[in-house]
Amino acid sequence: MATAETCVFCAIAGGAPAHRVWEDGEVVAFLDRRPLFPGHTLVIPRAHIETLAELPGGAVGGFFTVVQRMAVAVAEGTGAEGTFVAINNRVSQSVPHLHCHVVPRTKGDGLRGFFWPRRSYADDAEMAEVAAAVRAAAGSADVRAPGEAGPNRPGS
Amino acid sequence: MATAETCVFCAIAGGAPAHRVWEDGEVVAFLDRRPLFPGHTLVIPRAHIETLAELPGGAVGGFFTVVQRMAVAVAEGTGAEGTFVAINNRVSQSVPHLHCHVVPRTKGDGLRGFFWPRRSYADDAEMAEVAAAVRAAAGSADVRAPGEAGPNRPGS
Repeated sequence: MATAETCVFCAIAGGAPAHRVWEDGEVVAFLDRRPLFPGHTLVIPRAHIETLAELPGGAVGGFFTVVQRMAVAVAEGTGAEGTFVAINNRVSQSVPHLHCHVVPRTKGDGLRGFFWPRRSYADDAEMAEVAAAVRAAAGSADVRAPGEAGPNRPGS
Repeated sequence: MATAETCVFCAIAGGAPAHRVWEDGEVVAFLDRRPLFPGHTLVIPRAHIETLAELPGGAVGGFFTVVQRMAVAVAEGTGAEGTFVAINNRVSQSVPHLHCHVVPRTKGDGLRGFFWPRRSYADDAEMAEVAAAVRAAAGSADVRAPGEAGPNRPGS
């Protein structure tokens, strides 16, 4: 497991060579050397944080403000029609330092398959059961059930 | 093009049937009816905002705080090892109302291909050229070049 001492993204945050496209006190963005398409950018926190879950609450707004800015800039800078913004947490995560991919997209660019395979619900009962488990984990067990009227907004 | 009047996600934000897993004053999360895997959750702003670029600056932190919370809850609620968190802006965006996918991931789950095909850079000169275009679009044209020492942090 990479530590802050051996992590390649920590090295880039510290000044190692990279095609940087954004830097501020907390966040760095640079071109992925193995892009899906040219302009494919990675946004990282300078601090060695492994996954989105570990990003401190006070850093979430700043990090995603840069992601948002890069989504605009990558599209504009490459003349793309849209963007794909994605984070892999643990599974399929190549470097264990949080990084958000910002990939330029154009209709017909051939990018596909990331919504495959699908494993759907057997029935609505299974879906309700899974929803209850996620609600319990989110601490929002009192969120209204499907079709239930009226506001019931934990956290608001 | 969907408007706030005809948008299916606005309808869910307004109380239409859905397996909700989170609600607060600004954000709603619910299970995707056609999941990649059970537990696949969509996080949306209540307001009819089309893409990440249009999310007001003051709403970015709150929106992604819910995304972060759901990344934890979806993994915990489904017993997954990790998550895939993704936003399609315009291209491959099925509903033109900003939505962030939070998908439970497990090693060997078969999800692949979203890093395919790759269209790499011809050489470092092309990479430098693309980086310059993205920097210009991001308003960070003075970010240090590869290997250049010392901090140079616009926006910090």
